[in-house]
Amino acid sequence: MRSTAGNAQLALLLEVAATPKPGNVDRHRDLADLRFAHFMAGAVGAREGLEMAADGAAVGPAFERAVEKMAAQEGGNTQFGALLLLVPLVRAAREDLSRPVAESVARGTTVDDAASFYRAFEHVDVAVGDPPDDMAALDVRRGADAVPAVEARGVTLFDVMDRSVPGDDVAREWVRGFDRSFAAAERLAAADGPISNRTAAVFLSLLAERPDTLVATRHDEATARAVTDRAATLHDADALETDPEAVDSFADDLVDRGINPGTTADVTAAGLFIALERGAVDV
Amino acid sequence: MRSTAGNAQLALLLEVAATPKPGNVDRHRDLADLRFAHFMAGAVGAREGLEMAADGAAVGPAFERAVEKMAAQEGGNTQFGALLLLVPLVRAAREDLSRPVAESVARGTTVDDAASFYRAFEHVDVAVGDPPDDMAALDVRRGADAVPAVEARGVTLFDVMDRSVPGDDVAREWVRGFDRSFAAAERLAAADGPISNRTAAVFLSLLAERPDTLVATRHDEATARAVTDRAATLHDADALETDPEAVDSFADDLVDRGINPGTTADVTAAGLFIALERGAVDV
Repeated sequence: MRSTAGNAQLALLLEVAATPKPGNVDRHRDLADLRFAHFMAGAVGAREGLEMAADGAAVGPAFERAVEKMAAQEGGNTQFGALLLLVPLVRAAREDLSRPVAESVARGTTVDDAASFYRAFEHVDVAVGDPPDDMAALDVRRGADAVPAVEARGVTLFDVMDRSVPGDDVAREWVRGFDRSFAAAERLAAADGPISNRTAAVFLSLLAERPDTLVATRHDEATARAVTDRAATLHDADALETDPEAVDSFADDLVDRGINPGTTADVTAAGLFIALERGAVDV
Repeated sequence: MRSTAGNAQLALLLEVAATPKPGNVDRHRDLADLRFAHFMAGAVGAREGLEMAADGAAVGPAFERAVEKMAAQEGGNTQFGALLLLVPLVRAAREDLSRPVAESVARGTTVDDAASFYRAFEHVDVAVGDPPDDMAALDVRRGADAVPAVEARGVTLFDVMDRSVPGDDVAREWVRGFDRSFAAAERLAAADGPISNRTAAVFLSLLAERPDTLVATRHDEATARAVTDRAATLHDADALETDPEAVDSFADDLVDRGINPGTTADVTAAGLFIALERGAVDV
């Protein structure tokens, strides 16, 4: 019987290993400065913060610890978004890993959790968009410098997430009861074959469904939309089964162009955790 | 700063990911019933026992826990031998990760440690050779049933290892101060490139140096010798640099023939841990 923190760590590892996962590091592809080994080291480092959440620590401090130790490798940010989904889900699993409980964990976060979240940005560079003008004081890129403003305004971590939608589909999970994460878990359970194949299929289905917000932030909306359209065509044609070369070629093309649908990978990792923790998939 | 248990876990992951690693599961190859995901799940499970060793638990109980949780996946034995090297090395790192300290940890093991070692065989099938006739009562394949004989004869875990040489190069590490593990760490530090390339090079150098005892156990001495001879030819020609296709072809051939130099992989993992823990390599 694997522990809850162990399932969360395994979700990070199964996510990165699944292939093909167009645009992302996977078992067969590295990016220029971001390699498979960096993700493994990130998953190893994250374990401590995941254990904290499993032991009942508040979401913010557990997340900050997970990010700090995840970042102790030379690739930079590997799993920030995935951890932002996993930590509240691990916390929810202490009671019941269901959408209502996960939503109540998210809504129950405090100003202190928000302060820890801002401090997490001290440990790693994360791609985020510009905040609205009236939110400049709360720009996450200010890191710990923003904490006084967070405290003065009484902003909770849930508030931070709520204000990050639209434009950030990790934040969207927080305010919508982690619906895509739970849907991903159900799809993983319903899919066929070894876990790597299931994960690749679910990743493609998620990418086909909504433009990736990391791609939109780093490139633009049109690029994100084009990637999703191509994923949808492949998904509708069941290309992983019928024309795997087409998916590989899509994956190679995105890697060549530096287009990295990282938010979709984050949701995939969250779905893997839910499916593992519920015993709906096994390895 | 990664924890000692984290470095040991990362060593397991870096070992399995490094490619090409002829005959073993690697980033590009699965065996028929033993896949990459099983090794990731094994490494996740092992963490708890590795933490126990890092926190000062005795070698036997920490090893038994690591094996029990490592085995909680559907691939069977993934990292038994590697953990048998890592646990005493993690224990040594509490004081100093040097050959003399590692040797004294090994020599300091007790009858209770031996009993835990035997119980570890209850959790997983491990390929081992037949013991001599006068040792039948101590056949590790008897698992917990052998514990009364272990206790009656006052056999320590070091004694068990000492009696397993020759024929088991993991046990040989225990009685020779982990010399190949420390040598592997030095070679990893001296090699060039990303950690996956360094690991593949060191794996090949180890395989070229001594016939793999797991291959000798599962097949025969002649097969193990032939594998080492071919590895030596490739190693002497610096084939990973000059003719990588030849190493890949060797790797594919061994996988096709079901020849799995697992002991060499175990020593490689131990070398990775030593190099990571000493800061001689990084990721």
